[in-house]
Order: sequence, then C-alpha cells, then structure tokens
Amino acid sequence: MLGLTNIIIRSSFMKTRNKIIQASIELFNEQGERNVSTNHIAAHLAISPGNLYYHFRNKEDIILSIYEEYARSLLLDTLPKVSSDVKPLDSLVLYMDSVFQTTMKFRFFYRNLPVLLDKSPVLREKYVEVQQSISERVSQLLLSLRSADFIDFADDELADIVSILRLVNTFWVSFHQTQTIINEENDSVFYQGVLKILVILRPYTKAHAISELNQASNVYQQRFQEVVYSTTGQLNR
Amino acid sequence: MLGLTNIIIRSSFMKTRNKIIQASIELFNEQGERNVSTNHIAAHLAISPGNLYYHFRNKEDIILSIYEEYARSLLLDTLPKVSSDVKPLDSLVLYMDSVFQTTMKFRFFYRNLPVLLDKSPVLREKYVEVQQSISERVSQLLLSLRSADFIDFADDELADIVSILRLVNTFWVSFHQTQTIINEENDSVFYQGVLKILVILRPYTKAHAISELNQASNVYQQRFQEVVYSTTGQLNR
Repeated sequence: MLGLTNIIIRSSFMKTRNKIIQASIELFNEQGERNVSTNHIAAHLAISPGNLYYHFRNKEDIILSIYEEYARSLLLDTLPKVSSDVKPLDSLVLYMDSVFQTTMKFRFFYRNLPVLLDKSPVLREKYVEVQQSISERVSQLLLSLRSADFIDFADDELADIVSILRLVNTFWVSFHQTQTIINEENDSVFYQGVLKILVILRPYTKAHAISELNQASNVYQQRFQEVVYSTTGQLNR
Repeated sequence: MLGLTNIIIRSSFMKTRNKIIQASIELFNEQGERNVSTNHIAAHLAISPGNLYYHFRNKEDIILSIYEEYARSLLLDTLPKVSSDVKPLDSLVLYMDSVFQTTMKFRFFYRNLPVLLDKSPVLREKYVEVQQSISERVSQLLLSLRSADFIDFADDELADIVSILRLVNTFWVSFHQTQTIINEENDSVFYQGVLKILVILRPYTKAHAISELNQASNVYQQRFQEVVYSTTGQLNR
C-alpha cells in the first residue's frame, strides 16, 4: 500500500510530467517542433533541464508521450456514436469533426509527419496501428451509411474512399497552411475540413438524401462563417 | 561579348552549382533534409565548404534554388496537352501523372512542406504563386472534361473538386509513406496516386464514359503491378 508521502510525491511527479507535455504541445504548435529544444521547454516552465530529463530522456521521448495522449484521445474521445438515436450521417460527420479537432490540437505533429515517423520507429509503429483502427471505423461508418440507403458505392470502392477520406483528414490542416501567404490558424480551418469530407461524399449520395447532406453542409458553413466573422469582422466564403 | 575564358569560367561555375543542386536533392530525399547539412553536401561532392558557400549562402538558399528548378519543371514540362488529338481524360491523367512524378522526384520537399514554407517567406511566396497556376490548370482540365460530356458537376462544386485533387496530388506520397512500417519508395507509389485521382473522378463520370475511365484505371493498375512485380517478384494489389 502507498503511504500518503508516496502519493503526494507521485502526484507531484505526474503534475510536472503533464505540465511538460502541455507546454511542449503549445510551443511546438506555435514555434514549430524543429525550433523548440528541451532547454526551451524547461525555460518556459521555469524548471531546470535536469528536472525535465528526470521525466523525459529527450525531445523524441516527449513527442512519443504526446502522441500517446493524442492516440488515446483519438481512439476514445472520438468513438463514433453509432446508435439508433443518431442518424448515420451525423455519426460520420461527428467522427470526422473530432478527428479534425485533434489534428488541429496536435497540428505540429502533422506538419512534418513523415519526418517525425522516420526519426522514431516506435512512434511509427504506434501511428500505423492507430491508423489501421481509424480505417476500420471509417469503413464501418460508410457501410452503415450505405445500409441506411444514404449513399451508394460498390464493395471494391470502399477501401479507396476510406483512404481518400483519411488522407484529407490527415493533411487538410497542412494543406490549408500551404495555400496562403498569411497563415491564420483558427477553428475555421477544421470546419472547412469537414466541408471537404461532405464534398467527397456528395456524388455518392442518393437523390432522396441530398437535402440531409445539404443541411449538414449548411451547419458547417455557418460555423465557418461565424469564426471568420468573429476574427475578421467580415463575412467571407 | 564574352571571351572564351569567361565562357569556360561561367560554364564551370554552372556545372558546380548544378552538381550541388543534384547532390542535395539526392541526399535530402535519401536521408531527410533535416539530417543533411551543407558540410555533408560538400563532403559528398568532395568539394570544400568554402566552394559550396561561393554558390549558396546556406541550406535554405539551396532549397530555394531546388524549388525554382522544381517549379520550372512543374510549370513547363507538365503543361497539359490540350489539343484535338488528345482526349480530355488523357490530358488530365497525363497532367496528374507528371505532377505526381515531380512530387516523387522532390519528395523531401513535401515531407515537411509546412515547416519549410514557414522557414522561408520567399519560398512560401513562390510556392503559393505556383499553386495558384496549378489550380487554374486543373480547373481548365475539369471544365474541358465537362464540355466533352465526360463528367458532370455543378459550377459551385468546381473549386472544391480542384482543391481535393490538389490535396491528394500534394500529399499522396507523404500519406503513403506514413501508412506502413516498411517504407518502399518506387514508382508504384505515384501510379497509386494517379489511381486515387481516377477514384475521385469516378462518381462524377457519365454512364457512357465509365468504360473509358476504366481503361485509364487498367493502364495504371497494370503499371503499378509491373513495378510491384519487378521489385518483389510477387503480384499484389
């Protein structure tokens, strides 16, 4: 059994560890992972580099821990709500919405994903594993949309459609960042991502279901407009 | 008028400059841009670092010059062949094919595109300019496919379809690299990219044109198989 002193020490250990992770996410997103060293992170938290090394061996170790947190939130928080209360389109849209939200939250990670995975075989292994389970979920959601007579596709098209949706999910934020001189990063970016998913689904949608698809598009179009309006004071599209 | 000596000096200057560019592309692709310093490049070419600095101020300057070469080849070599001799689908496929080929040739660049653009505002400006002209071309090609009664889409869908095709074009190689534990980089990757473009076009394709789309798919499916067979000795899909 742990004594009170042990519990306090453990809790303080986890608190520092967690602070390092949160500060790293913030600094990596703002300044780019490449420009942030473990010394920067320690200085930002006003702790000694030695204290940081007590929790993490190096920057790679921090990135791996961030990815573990990310993967957990991606696999648990974004569990698609498949139930008789939720329409199949809403299940898919909500799932895509939460995947985009997590890619925004950890956007430094996607900005140079292939490079980070090359540097760490352990990270690559975890990443590939998580991707496979996301593929599985997206497939299930598409199949349930087809069962609900909402969309139509041939069986041998499924894997390709899943792969295109996941590519857009993974790289939309990066793509968006590379298309303009001025780089604004706010929620309007991920709302646009969800809208692109709906664009991909549109030509597979049955005629009688188009109005439901349009409703979902309108919701995200409006959210997008609201963010743009609140940040620039101007309506845009 | 330049004398012979001047011409020889200039030609030797360009030769070294060009060697540095070619070696950098090769090393960046193989080892990752992040892991290759100007000293590595000089050592690889058995020239002094001073000689390299005579041609390029720093690594960023090399990357900028590589991008200029890349942009030139992207804008000139990949000019879509629009003529009465070439079918509209072939024009689009050949264009996409050549864009994928150039992304393979300069793949280090796409592996951490947002990071590289953040580091260099000059590079970002050129990149955004080139992207706009690619968008313009892809739009024209889609419109000519629609005029030829091959595909159908509403006017307000055009910009979104172009954006999705370009996203796939830009990040397909990176996406592919992040999906498996073992990273094989050969032409099969870009053939699969072209196949994904055809998958995106399929649901917009008119019924009478599906067989032509299938023919194009079969050509790339076969090229893909040939590369896989020649590298692994096994048939795959």
